Amino acid sequence: MSPFTGSATRTPDWQHLRCEYVDGVATVTLARPEKLNALTFGAYADLRDLLAELSREKSVRALVLAGEGRGFCSGGDVDEIIGATLSMDTSQLLDFNRMTGQVVRAVRECPFPVIAAVHGVAAGAGAVLALAADFRVADPSARFAFLFTRVGLSGGDMGAAYLLPRVVGLGHATRLLMLGEPVRAPEAERIGLISELTEEGHVDEAAQALAHRLAEGPALAYAQTKALLTAELDMPLSASVELDASTQALLMNGEDYAEFHAAFTEKRPPKWRGR
Amino acid sequence: MSPFTGSATRTPDWQHLRCEYVDGVATVTLARPEKLNALTFGAYADLRDLLAELSREKSVRALVLAGEGRGFCSGGDVDEIIGATLSMDTSQLLDFNRMTGQVVRAVRECPFPVIAAVHGVAAGAGAVLALAADFRVADPSARFAFLFTRVGLSGGDMGAAYLLPRVVGLGHATRLLMLGEPVRAPEAERIGLISELTEEGHVDEAAQALAHRLAEGPALAYAQTKALLTAELDMPLSASVELDASTQALLMNGEDYAEFHAAFTEKRPPKWRGR
Amino acid sequence: MSPFTGSATRTPDWQHLRCEYVDGVATVTLARPEKLNALTFGAYADLRDLLAELSREKSVRALVLAGEGRGFCSGGDVDEIIGATLSMDTSQLLDFNRMTGQVVRAVRECPFPVIAAVHGVAAGAGAVLALAADFRVADPSARFAFLFTRVGLSGGDMGAAYLLPRVVGLGHATRLLMLGEPVRAPEAERIGLISELTEEGHVDEAAQALAHRLAEGPALAYAQTKALLTAELDMPLSASVELDASTQALLMNGEDYAEFHAAFTEKRPPKWRGR
Repeated sequence: MSPFTGSATRTPDWQHLRCEYVDGVATVTLARPEKLNALTFGAYADLRDLLAELSREKSVRALVLAGEGRGFCSGGDVDEIIGATLSMDTSQLLDFNRMTGQVVRAVRECPFPVIAAVHGVAAGAGAVLALAADFRVADPSARFAFLFTRVGLSGGDMGAAYLLPRVVGLGHATRLLMLGEPVRAPEAERIGLISELTEEGHVDEAAQALAHRLAEGPALAYAQTKALLTAELDMPLSASVELDASTQALLMNGEDYAEFHAAFTEKRPPKWRGR
Repeated sequence: MSPFTGSATRTPDWQHLRCEYVDGVATVTLARPEKLNALTFGAYADLRDLLAELSREKSVRALVLAGEGRGFCSGGDVDEIIGATLSMDTSQLLDFNRMTGQVVRAVRECPFPVIAAVHGVAAGAGAVLALAADFRVADPSARFAFLFTRVGLSGGDMGAAYLLPRVVGLGHATRLLMLGEPVRAPEAERIGLISELTEEGHVDEAAQALAHRLAEGPALAYAQTKALLTAELDMPLSASVELDASTQALLMNGEDYAEFHAAFTEKRPPKWRGR
Repeated sequence: MSPFTGSATRTPDWQHLRCEYVDGVATVTLARPEKLNALTFGAYADLRDLLAELSREKSVRALVLAGEGRGFCSGGDVDEIIGATLSMDTSQLLDFNRMTGQVVRAVRECPFPVIAAVHGVAAGAGAVLALAADFRVADPSARFAFLFTRVGLSGGDMGAAYLLPRVVGLGHATRLLMLGEPVRAPEAERIGLISELTEEGHVDEAAQALAHRLAEGPALAYAQTKALLTAELDMPLSASVELDASTQALLMNGEDYAEFHAAFTEKRPPKWRGR
């Protein structure tokens, strides 16, 4: 646990997703395989709340986001979300759409790397969840579809119009968000949407391997790398080099940096402590 | 027409380009084929004014920008523009260069997708016009050349130093803007400068097909997707997800979103109304 | 020399790197081949000071940054830098890290193109130096490694978390900065990290050829292209087109633009003067 806790308690039971912890790796599984893991209001809220809780836990050092069954996530459920929003008033619609954006911010701002393990379909909100992750491990069955315009909505959903141009460039992003066509694994790899392409059926294994490798590494160094990547997309060069300088000065006072030097001198692998 | 019109009248005759309207698609053709569609002061002014007028017309739902003859556009005319600017004073030079920038802003900010249909040369201002479009449909004869430094000017012309790094990355953009070398279709596709590569000679047909497909779709969803892509290049993540949330809340109150759900439920294609 | 000089004198002797001038091209060579050109405090300070001095010289029109021996630069020296920083206090650590950031800002902000000639390893600070350059000329032996997390530090070092996503996109940048794995030449070319790939062993020759070609060209046009590329990464579209307009108005009053037109009319190559 973080040294700074107050009255808040851990949620005893996540009812809308499955969450497991092994050796510093949290695995969050969207588990409605009969619905291709379509998201519900409860699933969005759980993702938002779970990421906030885990961000306060020092024990979590990497997170895998996976989908059970035939695909990763087919996006917002057509009945439970699209149908339900049709009878919402403006204030409720804003609350819902703010919640989905909070999930994406939580993925970008949590202090550990997030790895999306993508097989089969990652559509709509599912595609944006994968996009917000730090790593997208995918296999040849993966197909991403930002299909918001196909339901009459803006392609800029949950930060997609911010994130996608910064991942694949404005030209590809415009095409994907405007047309909502599926991007299959070869194209996704070619344009930079996939971090690691695995053999068919090996996505979960590869995502876990990457997560455990990260969890065994210098956690504070990874956390700050992620924080700077996220922050410096929104910062000018001059401020970015200043932020980098103060971050490195901080980490040079830390244990892991000294440990690297000791291990290097003693010709042994470093024992990272994440501080 | 937009419900909000005042005293301004439509321009009865565009003298420096050709403009046609079919089923919601405006096709603007640079039509000086004997000069490879080199731009004149009049052509820039017409593009600026035409885009402003079309942006107020609800009837235009997609725009194709094409070039007649052997190529798309060879850029500013060497005699009529470069020669003429040599005898301009500073104030006139600023007026001219602001006008060209206004054309690019108009392309980025108009409320419908713009499709550049590029065959043969797209050079100088012609390359930037294509770059500013939402889609670049090109065939194997296409070659882009940001040749500003070759006439002694800055590669940052009409927003090129802003747009090109956001489309192809800073490394490629620096090379293209500094050296002004032609980028042929295979490289342009590889670095993300082309949205759709067609067979030789099929550019206009493919651009029209895309435009008509967009014109038949959910126009307001496309307009907001474009607006968010343009705006969020200049916004931080936190503000972007807030803008996305309010945009989706707005569109969820719209007719097209309800129509999608009705069509989905009734297992029929949606009839988009663009509102 | 620049017309604006005061009391400052040129540094008579650069002790931590080698510097040569031929026909407007400065070649700066990291020359500790027995240490794979590992950087020392002195080398960083010399790079910072040299770039500041050269930025005031009108005679320098392009700069090549090269490494002697088996590789380009292995980054900060494990003993002379990592070891030494372990006994520094917070203020000293901040001074050091600010200095390294100043080198990157100087590379991005100097008024001439910088060409990194990369063969063999470009690791840590060496990879960021190459990343900050305008051009990366590399051969098949090149491998880039942003290995900061491997020593327990943040991948955002010297502006890397700002620059790398803008060169290769956020997905690739996250992978490279988090994991610190080597990127070999084929991948580096595919993701846009290499500007020009040469045959093995021809890096210095190709970098010199590019530098001399740039040095013979319109220097002011190149300087402004670079300045706008650097500035407009941090500017919105509206301000960027205004900056472009005033820059072009300025250059249209210059000698090189008039010379282009005269040469074009007389069907001869232009004689660039860089003003």
